[in-house]
Amino acid sequence: MKVVIAGMDGYIGWPLSHYLRWRGHEVEGFDCFLRRQMVRWAGGESVTPLRDWQEVPFCDLRLRRSGSPVQRFLEGADVVIHLAEQPSAPFSMKDMDSAATTANNNVVGTLNLLWAMQEVCPEAHLVKLGSMGEYGTPNVDILEGEAEMVFRGRHDRMIFPRRPGSFYHASKVADTYNVELACRAWGLRATDIMQGVVYGLGYEHQPEGKLGLTRFDVDPIFGTAINRFCAQAVAEVPITPYGKGGQTRGFLPLRDSLQCLGIAIENPPASGEYRTLNQFEQTYSIGELAQQVQVAAWYWGVASEVRHVENPRAEAEAHYYEPDHQRLFDLGYVPTRDMQLELRELIGVLREYRDRIDVEALLPDVHWSGERRRVEYLEA
Amino acid sequence: MKVVIAGMDGYIGWPLSHYLRWRGHEVEGFDCFLRRQMVRWAGGESVTPLRDWQEVPFCDLRLRRSGSPVQRFLEGADVVIHLAEQPSAPFSMKDMDSAATTANNNVVGTLNLLWAMQEVCPEAHLVKLGSMGEYGTPNVDILEGEAEMVFRGRHDRMIFPRRPGSFYHASKVADTYNVELACRAWGLRATDIMQGVVYGLGYEHQPEGKLGLTRFDVDPIFGTAINRFCAQAVAEVPITPYGKGGQTRGFLPLRDSLQCLGIAIENPPASGEYRTLNQFEQTYSIGELAQQVQVAAWYWGVASEVRHVENPRAEAEAHYYEPDHQRLFDLGYVPTRDMQLELRELIGVLREYRDRIDVEALLPDVHWSGERRRVEYLEA
Repeated sequence: MKVVIAGMDGYIGWPLSHYLRWRGHEVEGFDCFLRRQMVRWAGGESVTPLRDWQEVPFCDLRLRRSGSPVQRFLEGADVVIHLAEQPSAPFSMKDMDSAATTANNNVVGTLNLLWAMQEVCPEAHLVKLGSMGEYGTPNVDILEGEAEMVFRGRHDRMIFPRRPGSFYHASKVADTYNVELACRAWGLRATDIMQGVVYGLGYEHQPEGKLGLTRFDVDPIFGTAINRFCAQAVAEVPITPYGKGGQTRGFLPLRDSLQCLGIAIENPPASGEYRTLNQFEQTYSIGELAQQVQVAAWYWGVASEVRHVENPRAEAEAHYYEPDHQRLFDLGYVPTRDMQLELRELIGVLREYRDRIDVEALLPDVHWSGERRRVEYLEA
Repeated sequence: MKVVIAGMDGYIGWPLSHYLRWRGHEVEGFDCFLRRQMVRWAGGESVTPLRDWQEVPFCDLRLRRSGSPVQRFLEGADVVIHLAEQPSAPFSMKDMDSAATTANNNVVGTLNLLWAMQEVCPEAHLVKLGSMGEYGTPNVDILEGEAEMVFRGRHDRMIFPRRPGSFYHASKVADTYNVELACRAWGLRATDIMQGVVYGLGYEHQPEGKLGLTRFDVDPIFGTAINRFCAQAVAEVPITPYGKGGQTRGFLPLRDSLQCLGIAIENPPASGEYRTLNQFEQTYSIGELAQQVQVAAWYWGVASEVRHVENPRAEAEAHYYEPDHQRLFDLGYVPTRDMQLELRELIGVLREYRDRIDVEALLPDVHWSGERRRVEYLEA
């Protein structure tokens, strides 16, 4: 199949291009390099060195009008994988301009991609990255896809209710409704992937055969909790869960994310179908992650301390969390990586790049309240 | 109270400024005049003559960064009424550029207004116009506001599920989630008004005491069904419901919309509360509306014919529709206008401006499928 990856320069996009070529697909892609730019705005830098950006063709989904380059990339596509979104919740909560950049890049960019597909490849399968964070942490099981809902004795199948935790997550919710509408109005086929938090940086299937290393951000704007915890362990500063640490999320290693995306592509929905997949392997609380990182660091002889810091986010620190995630398993997903082994590899690599970790910049200063100040350690 | 109206040049904004001054409020406002521009792009023109645009100060919510004029307008505001959105579903389904303009103006504009409020008047009450169209036409009762939902025996209160019928309606859904988040994260207080279709053009409380006439669009992009039906009756061409005509929606006259907005303003929610009001008086099917317009036209001695045309939209033409709309009644809303009387006034005014109705341009050519061609009459 001919697969076009929007956002091919990114954390997942670049490893995915290798994985899908290895699976026998013809892969093309593009990027507008906004991620590189934003990480620099945030004062960060990928811990792993980045390859030359010119290896990926330039195309910006925000440049709308018909006849823009995106239409040319989509010609003949069987699958379009849309990874070209701003992925950071704290970035979107930083200030007016960052929130607007998020909505403009994610919501408007997705709309433009939908229209371009409708013009150029209306039969192609859109695989779009949403986020498990669209759902928030409701006090009910999170169903996968449209759910049977009953009100006053009548029922209908409806998109499962969302409660996004940031303007970034809200931009993903907006995408969900736009993509679902495109399926309903135009007969587009789409898989909307509610992905958990992806961790790890290693991937196979590079032309040279050696271990690939994707970009790896540890700054508090673009680094996820696991990334920053590993960087803290390697830098021998305390590992810092936010608040009580009972916040629970779904996680999966990078290689499993690639596997799942491959499965989604090779099992397309019918024309007009809007399909949701909740994509993660297992749930962990932030406190459990900190322990996992401690244990993996100990494998490398590093003793690390866990110190809780105040929570800059507006989120529940202890809550119910039972999201369904059966569909990918039904389609053949087999988890291949144990979290401990993955964290060992991750920490092993980071140790090689220890001098690229900016220890001063590991604690967040963007508060959901709008405040801007470095978080404080909580009393033990 | 000091009330600031974003979108004060519009169909509701200008009459509302008069109504609220009459209610004793201090009213300021601004507009970026996008509506005037878009109607011209669509080849239309308000049937009622427009006043000089310079009567309303210019400010564009899309101009983001801190320190932009919007912050200056919001200083000292007790209430911010946000009507500054692109209001047309067909416009949003026309092409890539129109869909992107919709998302950029509505979603990004709302985000920027939220941030400006957080900076300048975090205690002010945001009154935001959403749309009953956010819900679509589910096969269940539509509840008002957050609803108790039960899944597998557990329950939680969640935003009632949405099923928007166009990219315009999806932009309103995106706003809903952004506004709700701003209440949760920042403690903003907001009333999100899911408004039905507003009809009529007359309003009182002008300084001179005579009947005010707001803008009135009858082109198929910016004219609602009632507007176009009345224009068709006056122009003595067939009244043209789409499809079977069983599509049912909530409606309210312009004067009742002003009354309801006044009630929302004078009964603010608590700090941090996100409140939804379903704002309409009564539901009608499109077929019933056509009959109502026929009867009202007959009052003026005009005999009009109803001819169904193919439906350019992707929507159910016969469906269940029972939305709750109790809260405004509980707060004191008293419907003041009978639809027949309102339609008589409306048609009476249109008859004076009959030479400004472009008969050639009353049938739509924007299809939800992406096709662009004038709709055909259906066989009787």
